[in-house]
Amino acid sequence: MLNFSFHNPTKIHFGENQIQLIAGEIPTHAKVLVIYGGGSIKQNGVYDQVVNALAEHTWFEFSGIEPNPKYATLMKAQAIIQQEGIDYLLAVGGGSVVDGAKFIAAAALYEGEDPWDILAKQHPVKQALPIGVVLTLPATGSESNIGSVVTRDGHKLPFQSPFVRPQFAVLDPKVTLSLSERQISNGVVDAFVHTLEQYLTYSVNGKVQDRFAEGLLQTLIEEGPKALQPATKEDLDIRANIMWSATMALNGLIGSGVPQDWSTHMIGHELTGRFGIDHARTLSIILPAVMKVKREQKREKLVQFAERVWHLSEGSDELKIDKAIELTEAFFQRMGVPTRLSEVDVTQEDIDGLIEKLEQHGMTQLGEHGDITLDVSRTIYEKAL
Amino acid sequence: MLNFSFHNPTKIHFGENQIQLIAGEIPTHAKVLVIYGGGSIKQNGVYDQVVNALAEHTWFEFSGIEPNPKYATLMKAQAIIQQEGIDYLLAVGGGSVVDGAKFIAAAALYEGEDPWDILAKQHPVKQALPIGVVLTLPATGSESNIGSVVTRDGHKLPFQSPFVRPQFAVLDPKVTLSLSERQISNGVVDAFVHTLEQYLTYSVNGKVQDRFAEGLLQTLIEEGPKALQPATKEDLDIRANIMWSATMALNGLIGSGVPQDWSTHMIGHELTGRFGIDHARTLSIILPAVMKVKREQKREKLVQFAERVWHLSEGSDELKIDKAIELTEAFFQRMGVPTRLSEVDVTQEDIDGLIEKLEQHGMTQLGEHGDITLDVSRTIYEKAL
Repeated sequence: MLNFSFHNPTKIHFGENQIQLIAGEIPTHAKVLVIYGGGSIKQNGVYDQVVNALAEHTWFEFSGIEPNPKYATLMKAQAIIQQEGIDYLLAVGGGSVVDGAKFIAAAALYEGEDPWDILAKQHPVKQALPIGVVLTLPATGSESNIGSVVTRDGHKLPFQSPFVRPQFAVLDPKVTLSLSERQISNGVVDAFVHTLEQYLTYSVNGKVQDRFAEGLLQTLIEEGPKALQPATKEDLDIRANIMWSATMALNGLIGSGVPQDWSTHMIGHELTGRFGIDHARTLSIILPAVMKVKREQKREKLVQFAERVWHLSEGSDELKIDKAIELTEAFFQRMGVPTRLSEVDVTQEDIDGLIEKLEQHGMTQLGEHGDITLDVSRTIYEKAL
Repeated sequence: MLNFSFHNPTKIHFGENQIQLIAGEIPTHAKVLVIYGGGSIKQNGVYDQVVNALAEHTWFEFSGIEPNPKYATLMKAQAIIQQEGIDYLLAVGGGSVVDGAKFIAAAALYEGEDPWDILAKQHPVKQALPIGVVLTLPATGSESNIGSVVTRDGHKLPFQSPFVRPQFAVLDPKVTLSLSERQISNGVVDAFVHTLEQYLTYSVNGKVQDRFAEGLLQTLIEEGPKALQPATKEDLDIRANIMWSATMALNGLIGSGVPQDWSTHMIGHELTGRFGIDHARTLSIILPAVMKVKREQKREKLVQFAERVWHLSEGSDELKIDKAIELTEAFFQRMGVPTRLSEVDVTQEDIDGLIEKLEQHGMTQLGEHGDITLDVSRTIYEKAL
């Protein structure tokens, strides 16, 4: 096991009708900015629950955060923050809203000249407004971690800071019942790939981390498809298991003390940036190709993944790996997401442009060994065609 | 899954040579009281590492915390706290030292008349001195949870408060190499039973919690005996896996959203109180008896335990349960701890006295259904003879 530090102070309130608890989590005298997306929370009752919970608070609202939140949109929140003296942000939505709130929180107290530098130059965040979250879409884990991704002119740029980690997050699985099939699929696939990116590297004999990751993968494989099937799609236990898996998949725990490989995310980001493909669908396309291209370096963990997650006990290691990759692709297909670039109309001719973007973004040494060069990324894109 | 709130803000520094990090975690101007046990930390180098790390701090020391820390001992620390204006406690040791520090921290700022009321009358703790931990014995999970058990006149009394949760804990598996076999055994068994007490109840379809618990159980079963064997007892990876398992077993995570059954602990406490038997050894004696006596109510989870933890796939459910209990007892025996009262010279004649104590301590409705009455506890003691 590698040395690590782990610290996740986000308080989680999980379960039905927990949204009311936000009243006790946000200081009474705070001036709250409620941040949300396109208004779906007004259809599904979440907005009303938040409004009721904030009856004793002074609050304002800022809506219109889009999927892959845009820098320009987020900067628009600064005016109301200054004008009203906002000192607490409540993000109500999925990962994009939470990521957006994190950037808004950091930009509001940024002391440099241009908050864009937080993303473009990775200037350190030294303070941020406190954030609370009401999560409506289980997927990114952003509700209890320190990361955020913001998009500007087709560039997806991440930043991280402990100052933007939410102080609390309410996870009510019931609110996920109103999600579209596409949102559920994307969320399950995102959480699944997050887990694999902290698992499918090389062994450092971190038995707890491995087994926790395997537990999350198995849970998502079992519960994900059920959340799409007519007979079980209203089952709250299934939604609860998916929601808790997604949070645990990227709250820092399973990645503590083990190597990580975020190449699937980075190579996938360029597909979203260039073609606007849903984030999770870039992952379901790129991950199988990464498994195939990095098969040798990931051999030991691929076999473990085959045996423990897919229960493949027969045949040679080679066969187990083949089968595990096949089953992973079949799982993605069952979740209704693509596994090949051809399914989203990306062709060989597009690859040069994607590689250029990877280079431009400094993504020239990806993977747990830093050996996924631009040439290897090209091979991965080609394998995914 | 049941509704839950989860909050664990303890910062963990895990790995070799991490003790030096305490310097950055304790405020520079704090007046620190270093609290430890019988002096083993002076033999194994931990004391020196702590002294080096605190070179720039003002600190004092208080030693002599015994296993099952005694109220009278802990109260002796109050004099030095008042006299020197101590405002930070650093517990260096195992669960008893950490539990002791928690009570010292709460008693120091207790505003009632007699700190004993925190234990005897469960008076709420409203403030406490901040605590940091350098853990030397993986077992109780006390380094990142809110619980503490203090002993007075043969009574083991627990209290809980978020105010006594350690702010940070350093877990260096290397320092566990100097532990005795008995300490290692006790620690592994304690963590194993903690995990089972949050797992072996009835199913609420909490798949993540179940799989995390199963992962910890499997890890302890695999790694525990290796930490005792000459060929592998110096292996730091094994020690690391045990150490991280023990913390995760009782940091609140696996017990969130699922029923719990702490009857083994409560029934076992009376054996420590009356006969001074090591805490973990009371658990290894009582747990198998609880499994046998509560077999019907725990049937579904016992079968799952058999299949997933012990990989028993053949035969009827009855056979699987029989075999799982046998294998659990065999695991305890492999760890060198007793599984019967006769091994520790407790007989039928002692049971009346134990039941009296349970009654006196209000332990009349134990278990996940509250149906372990004094009569059932009697049956459990008898089954354990």
